[in-house]
Amino acid sequence: MASPIASRGSLAPLFEPRAIAVYGASSDPTKIGGRPLDFLKSSGFDGALYPINPKAAQIQGLPAFATVSAVPGPVDLAIVAVPAPGVLAALEDCAAKGVCGAVVLSSGFAETGGQGVAWQAGISALARRTGMRVVGPNCMGLISVRRRLLGTFTPSAAGFGLVPGRISLVSQSGAFGGYCLSLIRQRGLGLNLWITTGNQCDVDVADCITHFAGDDGTQVIVAYLEAATDKDRLVAALALARERGKRVVVMKVGRSEAGAQAAASHTASLAGSDQVYEGLFRQYGVWRARSIDELFDVAYACSVNAPAPLGRRLGLLTVSGGVGALMADVASDCALDVAPMPEDAQRRLKELVPFCGPRNPVDMTAQLVNDLTLFGSNFQIMLEEGGYDVVVAFLSSVGQVMELSRSLLEQLQAVLRRFPDRAVVFSSLASPEVRRMYEAAGVLLFDEPTRAVRAAAALVYFAEQSRRAAQADPPPALPAGALPPPVRAINETQAKTILASAGIAAVPERIAADEDAAAREAAALGYPVVLKIASADIAHKSEIGGVIVGLADEAQLRKAFRTLTQRAATHAPQARVDGVVVARMAERGVETILGVVRDPVFGAVVMFGLGGVFVEAFQDVAFRVAPFGVAEARAMIGEVKGRVLLRGVRGQPPADEDALAAALAALSVYAARHTDGIESIDINPLLVLPRGRGVQALDALIVPTTGAA
Amino acid sequence: MASPIASRGSLAPLFEPRAIAVYGASSDPTKIGGRPLDFLKSSGFDGALYPINPKAAQIQGLPAFATVSAVPGPVDLAIVAVPAPGVLAALEDCAAKGVCGAVVLSSGFAETGGQGVAWQAGISALARRTGMRVVGPNCMGLISVRRRLLGTFTPSAAGFGLVPGRISLVSQSGAFGGYCLSLIRQRGLGLNLWITTGNQCDVDVADCITHFAGDDGTQVIVAYLEAATDKDRLVAALALARERGKRVVVMKVGRSEAGAQAAASHTASLAGSDQVYEGLFRQYGVWRARSIDELFDVAYACSVNAPAPLGRRLGLLTVSGGVGALMADVASDCALDVAPMPEDAQRRLKELVPFCGPRNPVDMTAQLVNDLTLFGSNFQIMLEEGGYDVVVAFLSSVGQVMELSRSLLEQLQAVLRRFPDRAVVFSSLASPEVRRMYEAAGVLLFDEPTRAVRAAAALVYFAEQSRRAAQADPPPALPAGALPPPVRAINETQAKTILASAGIAAVPERIAADEDAAAREAAALGYPVVLKIASADIAHKSEIGGVIVGLADEAQLRKAFRTLTQRAATHAPQARVDGVVVARMAERGVETILGVVRDPVFGAVVMFGLGGVFVEAFQDVAFRVAPFGVAEARAMIGEVKGRVLLRGVRGQPPADEDALAAALAALSVYAARHTDGIESIDINPLLVLPRGRGVQALDALIVPTTGAA
Repeated sequence: MASPIASRGSLAPLFEPRAIAVYGASSDPTKIGGRPLDFLKSSGFDGALYPINPKAAQIQGLPAFATVSAVPGPVDLAIVAVPAPGVLAALEDCAAKGVCGAVVLSSGFAETGGQGVAWQAGISALARRTGMRVVGPNCMGLISVRRRLLGTFTPSAAGFGLVPGRISLVSQSGAFGGYCLSLIRQRGLGLNLWITTGNQCDVDVADCITHFAGDDGTQVIVAYLEAATDKDRLVAALALARERGKRVVVMKVGRSEAGAQAAASHTASLAGSDQVYEGLFRQYGVWRARSIDELFDVAYACSVNAPAPLGRRLGLLTVSGGVGALMADVASDCALDVAPMPEDAQRRLKELVPFCGPRNPVDMTAQLVNDLTLFGSNFQIMLEEGGYDVVVAFLSSVGQVMELSRSLLEQLQAVLRRFPDRAVVFSSLASPEVRRMYEAAGVLLFDEPTRAVRAAAALVYFAEQSRRAAQADPPPALPAGALPPPVRAINETQAKTILASAGIAAVPERIAADEDAAAREAAALGYPVVLKIASADIAHKSEIGGVIVGLADEAQLRKAFRTLTQRAATHAPQARVDGVVVARMAERGVETILGVVRDPVFGAVVMFGLGGVFVEAFQDVAFRVAPFGVAEARAMIGEVKGRVLLRGVRGQPPADEDALAAALAALSVYAARHTDGIESIDINPLLVLPRGRGVQALDALIVPTTGAA
Repeated sequence: MASPIASRGSLAPLFEPRAIAVYGASSDPTKIGGRPLDFLKSSGFDGALYPINPKAAQIQGLPAFATVSAVPGPVDLAIVAVPAPGVLAALEDCAAKGVCGAVVLSSGFAETGGQGVAWQAGISALARRTGMRVVGPNCMGLISVRRRLLGTFTPSAAGFGLVPGRISLVSQSGAFGGYCLSLIRQRGLGLNLWITTGNQCDVDVADCITHFAGDDGTQVIVAYLEAATDKDRLVAALALARERGKRVVVMKVGRSEAGAQAAASHTASLAGSDQVYEGLFRQYGVWRARSIDELFDVAYACSVNAPAPLGRRLGLLTVSGGVGALMADVASDCALDVAPMPEDAQRRLKELVPFCGPRNPVDMTAQLVNDLTLFGSNFQIMLEEGGYDVVVAFLSSVGQVMELSRSLLEQLQAVLRRFPDRAVVFSSLASPEVRRMYEAAGVLLFDEPTRAVRAAAALVYFAEQSRRAAQADPPPALPAGALPPPVRAINETQAKTILASAGIAAVPERIAADEDAAAREAAALGYPVVLKIASADIAHKSEIGGVIVGLADEAQLRKAFRTLTQRAATHAPQARVDGVVVARMAERGVETILGVVRDPVFGAVVMFGLGGVFVEAFQDVAFRVAPFGVAEARAMIGEVKGRVLLRGVRGQPPADEDALAAALAALSVYAARHTDGIESIDINPLLVLPRGRGVQALDALIVPTTGAA
């Protein structure tokens, strides 16, 4: 486990240096050691620049120094481009000089194996020892657009060409970071800070997110992440970003098996399960993009100063009925509420354009061409009477004409002065000038209408996450009498006893050592009952016929007892059998599965899914890092497609989701408390009874960690 | 039902006119009657132009005529922009002159209701009577890029700005068509023909698809469709397009409830169920796009002369491991096979770049910058030894540099000469010149890597569809002894008898009128048996407890008989009860649901889904228009997510998918034969037994059409 976040030095010297030394500076501006110097000189960086090269008196017109210690003034940042074998010595020099931050561009470290691994370990040790923050090695460097600081050799930075803005980006991969930089330039997105972390010998993605979270110039954090190395730092970073109201948009590859294998072989590190990341991102209000287009669409949407939508109600205003219907389709995919206009308001809209579509989408038709003021009047009625939280307006190619676009924007602003809490997203093919005019007014503009709708959905998501974060959702307290986890294999009744002590109710059941005891217990519980073999050595009872259900009376029970003992003797002769479990027949309810697994990165992780074939055949499950509160558990339940079964299908009553959420939260607290002692917990099924009647664990397995015994 | 396709006149005069008359031609080039003339004059259309306007001697510098009959030479196409009340008279003039095609831009017809409806009916009648093909009214007109014919008033056509190419587009919606035109210009896509059909009084989307299918200059057909009016024409059009090897990409809105409502209110026509369209598109190898970006990405992919991939094996070549993993994720979403390179080949790749990722994605790393020939050598090994059908190569921003791009293309072509059947999709930010160079070489180029992968998936889809279309898949013959559908309500045993006669096997069962008969039949079938109330008046037996399963002997059977008769008397006293059904207890198998419904547009439609909650809770179903063959049935089964259950989960053996497909095809043939007599058929469940053991209809309901009795 790495040192806690507080003890790590700030990244400020990296992004706010007064002076920069370039180690291995070259006179050839196409070389890795020449390019950053060339970029820094030509971009207009306002600090001092010191080429470090023992073999030259001057590099690219600047006086060169043999080592950084020879530099007369202070140096805050060193960019290191010497060959791998010389990097550590260069960094020692820097530390001696009091340099606070270094970026190591050189490759030939852990990624190549062999001696490189040792060299990289040396850099890590130096960083820890001296407190100097080191980026890389094997990275593409960093950029501060405001400072015109191009501390990178990526060709994508050539000629600067960057617009200052509120997006900051961190990429573990240099190639990915460079490609993104090109895209950012092509799209004209406003950028603040940019950094690639490469081998992450010291500074990792989590550090950068933390830095961005504390940076006033950053509103949106874009992160490309391959594998987290430190749960606590990443969680702390995401929590800080959320607390500071920054929007975090991530690209985390490895969703599929092929993708995960590619990512693993690429990073040579054991990533946690992808589904755990998915859960973590939802837990901390992060948007996970599935494509690079989406990554920057969402980043762009969050970088413009649009109000956070108050709810999911989406108004659609269009000049094309067809595009209106298309936007409604995509809005439904995004679970936005395309609520219809009130009847009265529909009549008012019909007065404006008799043949319009007034319902929602509101179709102004081509009449807009004849009367541009229809836009303002339609829009006003939609906000006034439709009460939409966010409106997406499709205007075809109007944005290509500045004159028309200005008129539309003025109408829009006149209405928004009365409804300052409503967000608006435009979709139109548009000239760059029109785009900038709209963005300056806090109105998003997308060429393509479905991308506009998806951006609106992202705004809604972040707004919901902010509201959720504002409400306390502490994990519940662990019950006072909660039993510790076992140190060796236990049977299901013992497992359920432990879980019950932790707050997860089980079906009433007893263990009976012999046939007569079984009959007594059954009579006490009341028929009909279920009989199951009780043995810590038989984990999957049903596979050997070790469960007999629906026993209606004592005769059936006694016969079943003999059958079970016979089967255990036949199929599992080595198993130590404690007798049988006599349980009351379960009521009707919805079968769910709750699990706990130990993730190599994130520790205790709780899994939830519907019972039956849903988990096995569809992988329809949700994960969360433990511990969490009841509201988080509720969100988790909501993510599972099979959730419809809990709402009551085929005439069944709605299930007790409150009790289910409480059980999930309780399980997470228990799992987090005993992370080191528990290998896994499997409650399968947990029966969710009708609303108000709770849950019952019908079967449970707790596997202790092998080292724990 | 409209007249068969063969009797309808060709659309050639619309797109290949020698001379055009513009009715309602205006001197003001911003007016609806002035703009087409202005466009046609300035675009360089090579035919004669005749403004028709009784009030002027000259319009926009051309001699004007009072009516088309006054025009000296022949006129093939009339563009009509006079106000609605005068349109019919203008068209009568045209017909008298022998004009073969007319485009009515004017609005004020069916879309406004009232008198407009009658006017439009008049146009339809005229078109039918004279054979003149009429586009519109209330449409945006048409374009032939090759002829530089801008028969439209959409501002999107101003200044021409169109590149000739192999994509032809038809849009029911004028606004959608205009927006697409702007997009096509912005993306620089090659366009051939463009048409909007508006109110479709005569020419509809299906006619245009048929025309495009027969047009040598068209390779890709893009269609925006709101609602089909004539199944036979649409099906014939799609079949012809497939036969001629044209790729069809559609945007059909109304997937969601909100979208469908929007589409319905917009077109004021009863669209068939969206899921039926979905089935139809798959049946005829059409790609349905979910966004406008996707619509044109796929159209673009099909318009470039890339080879049709021979299979689903996808090779990924990348300069960024991260983007490689991202592409692998998206490839998995698209069900492409990211198969690994053989071990030997991986060793060869490692020799080229020791620290590369050799598996697939193949990561060339930034080494490519130092040695550009790595691209060709990696690519060659991938084709040679990986045997990939299609390769997507991510090259970051290399496409912005012509020199590098040319080198890569030359290397690529050298390899492709040896593997001319492999398709390649590039992803790189690229200059327009580089893009054109690659396209000319049959290499697709996308800025964004996930869009490149999705385009590759579209190429694979179309190639598979072509192969499938090349293999005969006739619907099976209806069995000679197939019984006709009932003319009034029948009980389930009668329904199963009819279905069995049509080739869909049922569980062995008998009807017994009284208790003794039931006992005799049960003895003949063999215990255990199921007992069910037999009544044509009780459609949902299980809701009144009308089914008792697992009867082990005669005593249980007799008791159950009395219980059932009692329940029927209590819960359905009016029902006429035929006795009970005695059926052999079903074996273990997978429960599926087969259905037939009558779609308002498409007639008899067959539905398939898994039993249990899948259909009800997840709408996990597939549709096909009847009739179809066994291969189509197999494709249908493959579309359902619950299909995994048929493959055998939880230790169950794989189910008999052959028999299931045969039952679906047989049902489709029966339904198509008796479309007019059947309101619906519901086989729920159809039990699919383990492989080689067939299927059994356990319950069935046939509802005859009310008019049929």
